[in-house]
Formats: sequence, C-alpha cells, structure tokens
Amino acid sequence: MEVEVGFLGLGIMGKAMSMNLLRHGFKLTVWNRTLSRCDELVEHGASVAETPAAVVKKCKYTIAMLSDPSAALSVVFDKDGVLEQICNGKGYIDMSTVDSDTSSKISEAITSKGGSFLEAPVSGSKKPAEDGQLVILAAGEKALYEEALPAFDVMGKKSFFLGHVGNGAKMKLVVNMIMGSMMNAFSEGLILADKSGLNPQTLLDVLDLGGIANPMFKMKGPTMIQKSYSPAFPLKHQQKDMRLALALGDQNAVSMPVAAAANEAFKKARSMGLGDLDFSAVHEAVKFPESSS
Amino acid sequence: MEVEVGFLGLGIMGKAMSMNLLRHGFKLTVWNRTLSRCDELVEHGASVAETPAAVVKKCKYTIAMLSDPSAALSVVFDKDGVLEQICNGKGYIDMSTVDSDTSSKISEAITSKGGSFLEAPVSGSKKPAEDGQLVILAAGEKALYEEALPAFDVMGKKSFFLGHVGNGAKMKLVVNMIMGSMMNAFSEGLILADKSGLNPQTLLDVLDLGGIANPMFKMKGPTMIQKSYSPAFPLKHQQKDMRLALALGDQNAVSMPVAAAANEAFKKARSMGLGDLDFSAVHEAVKFPESSS
Amino acid sequence: MEVEVGFLGLGIMGKAMSMNLLRHGFKLTVWNRTLSRCDELVEHGASVAETPAAVVKKCKYTIAMLSDPSAALSVVFDKDGVLEQICNGKGYIDMSTVDSDTSSKISEAITSKGGSFLEAPVSGSKKPAEDGQLVILAAGEKALYEEALPAFDVMGKKSFFLGHVGNGAKMKLVVNMIMGSMMNAFSEGLILADKSGLNPQTLLDVLDLGGIANPMFKMKGPTMIQKSYSPAFPLKHQQKDMRLALALGDQNAVSMPVAAAANEAFKKARSMGLGDLDFSAVHEAVKFPESSS
Amino acid sequence: MEVEVGFLGLGIMGKAMSMNLLRHGFKLTVWNRTLSRCDELVEHGASVAETPAAVVKKCKYTIAMLSDPSAALSVVFDKDGVLEQICNGKGYIDMSTVDSDTSSKISEAITSKGGSFLEAPVSGSKKPAEDGQLVILAAGEKALYEEALPAFDVMGKKSFFLGHVGNGAKMKLVVNMIMGSMMNAFSEGLILADKSGLNPQTLLDVLDLGGIANPMFKMKGPTMIQKSYSPAFPLKHQQKDMRLALALGDQNAVSMPVAAAANEAFKKARSMGLGDLDFSAVHEAVKFPESSS
Repeated sequence: MEVEVGFLGLGIMGKAMSMNLLRHGFKLTVWNRTLSRCDELVEHGASVAETPAAVVKKCKYTIAMLSDPSAALSVVFDKDGVLEQICNGKGYIDMSTVDSDTSSKISEAITSKGGSFLEAPVSGSKKPAEDGQLVILAAGEKALYEEALPAFDVMGKKSFFLGHVGNGAKMKLVVNMIMGSMMNAFSEGLILADKSGLNPQTLLDVLDLGGIANPMFKMKGPTMIQKSYSPAFPLKHQQKDMRLALALGDQNAVSMPVAAAANEAFKKARSMGLGDLDFSAVHEAVKFPESSS
Repeated sequence: MEVEVGFLGLGIMGKAMSMNLLRHGFKLTVWNRTLSRCDELVEHGASVAETPAAVVKKCKYTIAMLSDPSAALSVVFDKDGVLEQICNGKGYIDMSTVDSDTSSKISEAITSKGGSFLEAPVSGSKKPAEDGQLVILAAGEKALYEEALPAFDVMGKKSFFLGHVGNGAKMKLVVNMIMGSMMNAFSEGLILADKSGLNPQTLLDVLDLGGIANPMFKMKGPTMIQKSYSPAFPLKHQQKDMRLALALGDQNAVSMPVAAAANEAFKKARSMGLGDLDFSAVHEAVKFPESSS
Repeated sequence: MEVEVGFLGLGIMGKAMSMNLLRHGFKLTVWNRTLSRCDELVEHGASVAETPAAVVKKCKYTIAMLSDPSAALSVVFDKDGVLEQICNGKGYIDMSTVDSDTSSKISEAITSKGGSFLEAPVSGSKKPAEDGQLVILAAGEKALYEEALPAFDVMGKKSFFLGHVGNGAKMKLVVNMIMGSMMNAFSEGLILADKSGLNPQTLLDVLDLGGIANPMFKMKGPTMIQKSYSPAFPLKHQQKDMRLALALGDQNAVSMPVAAAANEAFKKARSMGLGDLDFSAVHEAVKFPESSS
Repeated sequence: MEVEVGFLGLGIMGKAMSMNLLRHGFKLTVWNRTLSRCDELVEHGASVAETPAAVVKKCKYTIAMLSDPSAALSVVFDKDGVLEQICNGKGYIDMSTVDSDTSSKISEAITSKGGSFLEAPVSGSKKPAEDGQLVILAAGEKALYEEALPAFDVMGKKSFFLGHVGNGAKMKLVVNMIMGSMMNAFSEGLILADKSGLNPQTLLDVLDLGGIANPMFKMKGPTMIQKSYSPAFPLKHQQKDMRLALALGDQNAVSMPVAAAANEAFKKARSMGLGDLDFSAVHEAVKFPESSS
C-alpha cells in the first residue's frame, strides 16, 4: 500500500483501529495528545508526527477518532490543527461520535479550505474495534469514501455511504433509539415475569430461542438479573441519544410515543443517580420499588 | 416405542406436529373434527378414532392442538369428549394457545376425574412445527411432563417446565408483550429514518449487523417497507396479548409504560380496521398520515 | 308527600342523603345492616323495617346506597332481600358505585320479577351529599327516573338520565379517567416547577387565575405540596377506574395514550404501597426519588 | 401620574394594554413599526416617538409587547433601538412571549448598559387584555417590578414576581404543559364517551358540575364537538411549549410520561397539517380515524 494515511487519537478505539490498519500493511502516521501512547504503534511500524497539522501535511487523508465533540473541534481548529494544512486534494475523516452541529462545523471548515470531508461514526465498541468488526456509517464526500474504502474494509465488517454530512449521525440516533426502547420493553418483561411468579432466567432462555432473540438480550439479561451495570454504554449517553432522536422526530413531525415513554424511563433513572452506569440500569427505574418478597 | 399416544386436532400445526411424531416412531391414534383430514396421517401409520373419548380410552396420554378456546373446551366437555374417558393413570396435554381461564377450567375438569393435565402452548408457527423446531412452554403435572418429554423432543427444539398450570400462558404473554413493544420501536425507527432522509432499507442493513439484530426485524422489515401485511400473527391477537399482559401487570402492580404506549398504538391500528392483518401492520398506524413528499 | 320511599344503607353517604329526603317531607322507611344506625333517622321521622324485603314490600320505590358491589348484591339476592318482594309496579334504584357486571346482574333480576330498575351512581362525596349537591347519573327505566325525580332533586343539584342500564357507570368512568389524567399532569407540573427553581405555591396561584383553574387543583394542590394524602378517593379505586375506562376503550377500539400513561403512574404508586391513600398520592410516584437539594 | 412610560408594539395585545394605561391616567409615549397604528392612542392622549430609542430616551421605563422573538430582538438591537438610549436609571420591561435564550440575550444587553430589566410574559389573550384581566409573570430586577406595579395593576388582575430572569418564561411553560396534557385527557374522554354510546354534550354538562370543571373545558368542549378549531392559541405553538417544557424537565431530570404522551399526540396532529388551527384540534388526531357510525 503506497498511500500515506494519518490517524489522530489513540484512545481505546483509535489504538485498536490503527493497529488493524498497520497489520494490513497500511503506511500510517499517527498523533495523540499524549504522545507516549504512540509508542506501541511505532513498534508496529507507524511514524509519529508532533501535531495534527503535521500529520495532515504528510498524508493523503487523515482519520480522527476522538473522545468527544470538544476534542474533535480542538484537533481541527486549535493552533497546529488540521485546518492549517488541509487543502485541495487532501481528505479528513472524522470517525468520532459527535452531534450534527459539531460535524457540520468541521465539515464547513474543511471544505472551505478545499479539503474533502467525511463523517464516519461507528457502531460497536472495544472488542469489534480490535477484531475489525465495526459497522461504519459514513456520509459526506463520496470520492473520499471510495478512496478510504480499503481502510474501512480493514477496520469494519461493513461500511455504509449514507449521503450528505449529518446522515451518519442521524442513522446512529435512529439505531440507538430503537435500542433504548427495546431495552425498556425487555426490562418491563423481566419484571413482569418475576412479579408473576416466573423465573426471569427461564424467560431469557425462552427469548433466546425465538423470533426476537438478539445479542443485546443475551448479553445484558444475565447482568440485569444480577443488578450488575458496569458501563459499556453509559445511561446518560443513551438518554441523550433518545432525546436527540425525539428532537429529530419533532423537526420532521414524526410521532413516536413508544420512544417517548422509554425516554421518560431513562430520565427517571437519571434522576435516581444512575446516569454513569450502563444504560441497562434503566431496569432499576422500571422495577422500583424492589419488592421484598 | 410402545406407548400409545393420542392426538386431537389436525389443523396446520397439529398435522405437522403429529407427522413428526409418526416419523420418529411414535404409535399414534388421531382424531379431527373433519375426519378426512386424518387420511394422510393414516398413510404414514396412524390409527384413527371416531371421537375424542375413543382416543383417550385407547391412549396413555393424549395431545390436543385446537384452533381456539371454544374448540379446546368443546373437545373436552362435549358429548363423546375427553372427560368421558379420562381417569387415573391417563394424561391430557393441551398445546393450543388459550387464555388462562380456559386452561384452568380444563385443568380442573381433568384432575377432578383423576387424570393428569399439562398446558403446553408453543412458540413458533407452521415452519418450525414442520421442522420440529417449536419452543414448548409446559406447565402443570410434572410427572406427565416427564412422560411426554420424548414427544416434546420430537416436536420442539426445546421444552420448558414452568410450574403450575397458568405459567405456560403467562410466559407466552410476557414474550409477546416484549415482541409487541419491539415491533412498535422498530416501526417508529423506520419512519423516523424515512422522514429524516435516510433509506429505510439501509437502516435494516445496519440493524442486521449490530447488537439488536433479530429474526423479526430481518423478516418483517422488508415487508413493512412494502406495506405487505399478510397475517402470520394477526394484529388483533397481538393486541389482545398486550392487553392481557398489561392486565397481568395490573394484578401484580407492575408499571409498564412502554408496553402501555405500544398497546395504544395497536388499538389505533385496530380502529383503522387493520386487526386481521399481520401485527406488523401497526406500522400503518404509527406512520399515519402518509407523507406525500 | 304521599308516596312511601324506601332507603337501604345508612353509611356516611346514605345517611346524609336520607336525612335530606326527610327534611324535604319525604315519607321514608329505612333499613341498615346495623339497625342502630337507623335511630337518628327515626328521630327525624323515618320508619324502620327489619329487612330489605320488608322495606320493598311497604314502598313504591326503594333507593339503595351500599358500600360496594358485594353489599349491593347481598341486599338484593340474599334471604329477606329485595328480590323477595319486588314486583310489577315497584321500583328499585341502586345509587351505589358498582361495576357494570354487578349492575347488569341486579337489573336482570329485578326486571325478571316485573320490577323496574334504575342505576344512579353519584358524583360527589360526603359534603355534597349533606348539602344536597350531588350529581346523579341515572340509567335504566325512564318512567322510574321520572317518578324519582323529586327525590333526586332533593339529593342532588342535578340529575341526568343517560339511557339504558350501564351508561351511568360508563359516564362515571369517563369522568374519572379525565380526572386521573389531569391529576398526573398537575403532579408533573408541580414537580417541574419545583425542580426548575419555581415556587410550587406560586404555580398554584397562577393556575387558579387562568383558563384551567378548577376545584381539584385548588383543593388538592396545597395538600400535595405538604405531602398530605388523607383519602377522599383512594388511589386504588382511582386506578381501578382508569383500568376499567381503558378496558372500555379497548372494547370500542379507542386509543388513549395519555390515560394509559397516567394509569401506569397510578400502578407505580400502588406498587409503592400508596393504594389506600388519596389518589393525589400519585404525586409521590411521579416525583420519586425526592431530590435532597 | 407624573412618570413618563414608554410602550413599544401596538398589535392586538399591545393596543389593548396601552389603552388601559391611558384610561387610568398614565402619561404614555408609544411607538409601533407601522406608525399609523399609533393614531388611536394619540386620540386618547398618548405621545408618539419615531424610534424605540426615542421612546427610551424620553421615559423612565419602557414596556414592549412584540409579536415574536425576532421582533423582540430587533427592537432592542437594531439601529435606533432600545440599546442606544438605555442607561443607568432607566428600565426596560419585555412583556412579549419569547424563549429563554432571547430573554437572556436582551437582559444581558440592557444590564450591560446599566439599565434594569424585567421579563413579564402574560397569561391571557385579547379579551383579558382589553379588560385589564391579564396574569403577569414578571422576573428580573425587583426594584423595576415595584416601580412598574401601578402599571401592572392596570393591565392585569394579578402580577407575580418570580425571581431571576428566565423564571417568567419557565412558569408559562409549566402552565402550558399542564394545559396541553389536560386538553389531551379531555379529548380522549370525549371520544371514549362518544364511542361508548354516551352523548358527548352530556359529558360536558356532567364535567361542568364537578370537581374538575374549568373554563377551558367549558369553552373548548362545544367547539371540539362541532370540529371548529378557529385558532385562539395555535397548535404548533402549544406543541412547541410542550417540547420546551419537556426539555426543561430533561435538564432537571424530571420524568413526565403524561406530558410526553400528550406531546406525541400534538406532533401527530402537526403531521396531519393541523398546526395552524387551535390547539384543541389535537382532538382530530386523537379520534382518527373518524368512525362512520
């Protein structure tokens, strides 16, 4: 592979993704705010640059995987940031999960300098990142999507091109909204089973054999029964996504009573101080008050 | 196999199930209201009896698979019915889907004659019945469950013994309640995607790769997009199950706001005249009014 | 006034109502399970009879105001009950609050003996009963309604004739359903005000000056702020009425998402052990968990 | 009365309010974008100024009653606007209904120039404005509130001082949220009555005699039965207030399932194209599909 690819942000996700790129022969220049986190990548053949601008200068296109919107903005707009070197012929691909305002702001800045831009949030967390099994929801410049496809094929099991910037974030909201409503339905069912004299574990077994069997029920069910809510996806983020999905529905006059009811349950959970636990902790709000029997 | 087993009711489900029993060497005596439907079974080695009572008289235990509660009651209580021959040492297994009142009434009548009883509703429709892949939710007399286990192993991929009579029906209600809420969440997501400028088919593809992928989304999604609602499970039955699950929650003081919201959507669909279509037709109620754009 | 009127049941409501009849010159024969409760009425001119049957035998029409469905049934069907003497030319008016099944059962029994029947549940509690300010929701035999109108005019500020038996109970359910949903909306508003830094008492003052000012907000608001829920109308009865109203909607395919959400909140309150408190105690379920700030 | 008071905005509301001030002897200088609308005021003794700045220059405090946030901002920030003359010792009172962002922006600008500020949205429309029967929800500078109290007493039947800027708008949102949920409960009740064979007009009569009787039911009930939705308060504005109230709840982790369900019904009504009708037109969404019987 001859093309030089940049990679900004080597957190849990970014490290796993860039490692996969190296393993598949990509020529990589990396940068991280704490530069020492680059060491392991260097051992596997990556180059290091001292600033985001330096990465962009050197590479045909640059991928970013930052922790939150403020980090995503800072890497582009701050001194020595992406904007200083982006130009016609270069691409910038932000795979961080950010809101659509942040994504639009970055997109406009990049394109106004002549660069091409892609938002490409992913579905999947640490394990799929390591295994190259992410689902990539890309939107923006189609030509850049095609250029980056070999990299996407390495990092993910599947990538989608969804049209103009903003659609990647929207798709994620829709998926997470369905997931949040399902989690509430699942929680109500577990509690109904328990209070009606059925064994919740048996419910899990029955569900797993039927038409609505899915990985989330299989993975979260046993931990919910044990009241174990170690955060894979924090409840406050799930509730934020429900809120944003409902806001998207509001803009488009889509009535979503089930999602709205689920959102109120997540808010109740937040008011109980469960926001930093896993989103399955909504189970505690749904079942309150715990029966003593 | 030496034990003589009875089988009452040779509709779509009953025929498939009894054929599987024959294929696996069970000695079967069958009965159906329209006796001609027994012919194919006879060709495969079954005996025929002229009345439910005659089947019971001849067999160690008898399985029934009837279309609805009134048929289930009639086969037991009418002249020449099960009650006339059931007695100590004989078992009766009703695999029909009936409400808990019907099940209790049959249970009491059978046991008051000294017979043993099992309710054993199934999860799964025609195809799983043919393939011996049903999920069987049995409750009642444990000894009879154990006696019938070889038959259950042939008809289903898995059977559960859930305790006293009524628990089989309750388990089905809990599963169907979760399914109904999920269907609504799914429908809201498809519409939100569509109205927000995303391709609903792409949403299906994305969902199918993630943590909430499940057979129902995979099977119903494409037909919902095409507005095709050929009834596998009629909406009015799904709504009835939602109502009964909510009533079960009412008895046990379980608050289920998401299921309640989903139930109101199914009621809206009923009021639109969609009760006889597939339960996925709730999609039409959720998306009304169809945008012309 | 020459007509002899019977009155069965001298609880808080019945005593106040019969006292009003006496005060306005009605000739009354009364009965109560505990006969000593008749004494005060006798001092004001009532006759006493020893059984419901004896009251009916003596009177042109007989009014009943019993505590619950089982008392209402017992007074009619038990030995020495209403049925033994009811006949052509005599009327029976049940003003108790009972479910429609109970009302139908009594209606059929009375009319099969040739008697005429009216269900006439009331809106209003102790104070309006004493002041002759009840609202009377009558349904059944129109001629009996007209015959009893002078008595209704004394006991209530207004009576309605609503058609066939069952409509009185239905009208009460509809009113109570609206009331229950309003109580939830009110509770949510009080909590939103409080958590948003507004004084809930000021909200009450503002509400009382506007287009949605109503006696319930005025009366219940201050006690809800003080967490005082002395039962005027027990929460478990309000929730039962919500459930019955939703069931009525189910029969008629009426989708009622707001009532359904309110019902789930009342169920949550029941699960918290608040069923015997006033229905305004749903406030505790809505605001849980109480913020410490 | 010696103090010179300014008044900006002479629409339906502003004209009625300023006329009341004149009638009670206030010395008034008025301005309106279309100056000809000032004529009637001048006939009753008002002075006219050619710009908002000129009004402020002349007056101790100035009241504004503009149609929407953009008008409210324009009058303050544009050339010849309020900001050019506001200063220490002068007050500005915005009685328009605006969102809290707009209110904050104006407040900051006024106070940064040394002026004092009050937001004072009102509850009540044309008729109460003419009759001096508005309810005034003031928040901001307490001293200015006290200074303006004589004017508030003339324009309204009651004014409240609610603390810091933003609280006036919040109080309005809470009231409108309760109102919107009540409207839905009322609509569901009217439809349940109708579909259950009761006369909706009789329901109105019964409601009007009971504990939840209120002016809104009395006024809107008959027009809803007649499907007449001439806009007193447009549905799209009601739905916007529901959304903002829910957003306020989101910020403060207040779960409001009944308001959320009501909001979804208003959204459904918007999607049916009813946004410009009166908010009672949600009735059409609740009852869809209209039964032909």
